[in-house]
Amino acid sequence: MKKLINGPEDVVREELQGIEEAHGDRVRVSYDPNYIVRKDAPVQNKAAIISGGGSGHEPMHGGFVGMGMLDAACPGEVFTSPTPDQILAATQAVSGGKGVLHIVKNYTGDILNFEMAADLARGEGIEVEAVVIDDDVAVKDSLYTAGRRGVGATVLAEKICGAAAEGGASLRQVADLCRKVNANGRSMGMALTSCTVPAAGKPTFELGEDEMEIGIGIHGEPGRERRQLATADEIVEMLAQPIVDDLPYGPGDKVLAFVNGMGGTPLIELYVAYHALYKYLHGRGITIERNLIGPYITSLEMAGCSITLLKLDDETRRLWDAPVNTPGLRWGV
Amino acid sequence: MKKLINGPEDVVREELQGIEEAHGDRVRVSYDPNYIVRKDAPVQNKAAIISGGGSGHEPMHGGFVGMGMLDAACPGEVFTSPTPDQILAATQAVSGGKGVLHIVKNYTGDILNFEMAADLARGEGIEVEAVVIDDDVAVKDSLYTAGRRGVGATVLAEKICGAAAEGGASLRQVADLCRKVNANGRSMGMALTSCTVPAAGKPTFELGEDEMEIGIGIHGEPGRERRQLATADEIVEMLAQPIVDDLPYGPGDKVLAFVNGMGGTPLIELYVAYHALYKYLHGRGITIERNLIGPYITSLEMAGCSITLLKLDDETRRLWDAPVNTPGLRWGV
Repeated sequence: MKKLINGPEDVVREELQGIEEAHGDRVRVSYDPNYIVRKDAPVQNKAAIISGGGSGHEPMHGGFVGMGMLDAACPGEVFTSPTPDQILAATQAVSGGKGVLHIVKNYTGDILNFEMAADLARGEGIEVEAVVIDDDVAVKDSLYTAGRRGVGATVLAEKICGAAAEGGASLRQVADLCRKVNANGRSMGMALTSCTVPAAGKPTFELGEDEMEIGIGIHGEPGRERRQLATADEIVEMLAQPIVDDLPYGPGDKVLAFVNGMGGTPLIELYVAYHALYKYLHGRGITIERNLIGPYITSLEMAGCSITLLKLDDETRRLWDAPVNTPGLRWGV
Repeated sequence: MKKLINGPEDVVREELQGIEEAHGDRVRVSYDPNYIVRKDAPVQNKAAIISGGGSGHEPMHGGFVGMGMLDAACPGEVFTSPTPDQILAATQAVSGGKGVLHIVKNYTGDILNFEMAADLARGEGIEVEAVVIDDDVAVKDSLYTAGRRGVGATVLAEKICGAAAEGGASLRQVADLCRKVNANGRSMGMALTSCTVPAAGKPTFELGEDEMEIGIGIHGEPGRERRQLATADEIVEMLAQPIVDDLPYGPGDKVLAFVNGMGGTPLIELYVAYHALYKYLHGRGITIERNLIGPYITSLEMAGCSITLLKLDDETRRLWDAPVNTPGLRWGV
């Protein structure tokens, strides 16, 4: 296992210390239980937004805490759900009197623990709504999920809902918006290589030198099929076709196109993939109005990419463009 | 070779097409010869700044074209210097009457070709100054360089000089500032794995499962030594110690600390490394006033990191903080 780490058991704590030392102007970090909150939390009279999940997907979610996006993030151990007490503590820390939205990716452990934390918070008089993101069209059920997995649309929902909350929207409005983003977003990913969970010390799965996994999950869980390595144009079509067919997206649609790196794939390849996606969508009359290209929802050092499309309307486009000031996404400030 | 590409010969052109399709709101791309310019080039009565070098280091340099940073970037083929005609064409395209600065990383081919282009441009009446960046303390001479290589300080120089030019500084002032950044910046890098140049199809070098290369160059050229794999704390000390000793940096110094990913190393590990660097510098009385953490000067899919320190003063700190609007670095707008 070749990683820039000290002990496998130290990775998450030391990562959080690094985030605190680097971004103390914008966030505060709590340890035991672990969570990251915006520095000015709790923001009074603003619907607060929390997300969380296993570590190993950075910058998601800790890198998205700050003005215009998340109020808090709860990082579990690598690829491990955060615990209810973490989520509860973060919920208490950000509650500013207007309720708290939990944005939850659809993994069984995450769902259970967020639900338990929401119940406990409600018992303390905090209004909590939860929205489950399940945008991955690759497989119906998987190793860790009943139904579809939550992947790239989570990043877009956090940005768009964060802008709405910053603008004064109510908890109900922000939750409805989150459901709308999930309803209009679809994703699929692929891997060229496996990743290695530090505590496991060996690759999660094996892929031959001329193989790739299409429909991979962000924890290396199996996808649709293992195939012979193909060109970028072919790979992008294998991902984009099921996405476009699923919603479906059609001529005249305007979308945000998100080409995400899995952690080990460099930007030069993501731009080649973006070009392939641009050609593919252009040929189907679908217009890319906004884009996001880079490693935003990663799977440790896995090589590969995922594609997310989000159908835009005036509201979601405006909220996407609104100022954001987080370590991972920043513009307008 | 596992990459998201079509043919090896198509990588750079398709990457540029992707950049043009994604960022057409901010940049224009020219093909044959290849260069990227800010959309509003030439900006009249502003000193223009150009950089360039081989592709494979993205987002450097193409991702740094835009308001507050570069006026143009000249990407060569992967790990191959741009040609004089590319650089000349870019120089002509951005010349707004106040001269053009060439920021050149110290590699023999880059130096020769930038010099030739500068001579040709001067022959056409364009005032050109060139500053060579040579911040890598790892080795004195290397496979492609006489003297020290130019690495991470290049990114910082482009940002800081870009802000000065945007603010109305003269060509001479911007060039002097660039020399100051180079004089106050030092870097060193390491690799956990090799990278594979698409046209070569096989790894540039071999590293055993328990080996790493300390002092690696951004093209995979040899460093100081090949060592047994170590912890993040030990690795960071192996990089930081020669940097700190070289300038030297000492108690009371205020620095920008840049922890750079080589392309295949995910953000979670870079934050662990940043934490190690923070501890190391704190113990020596050196204060980190600004930071940059992520893959900004990469070496294709190489796993590893580099550290750059830049001693800050009021001028460079203010210029670092100034607004920038490029695909790769953006804040304040």
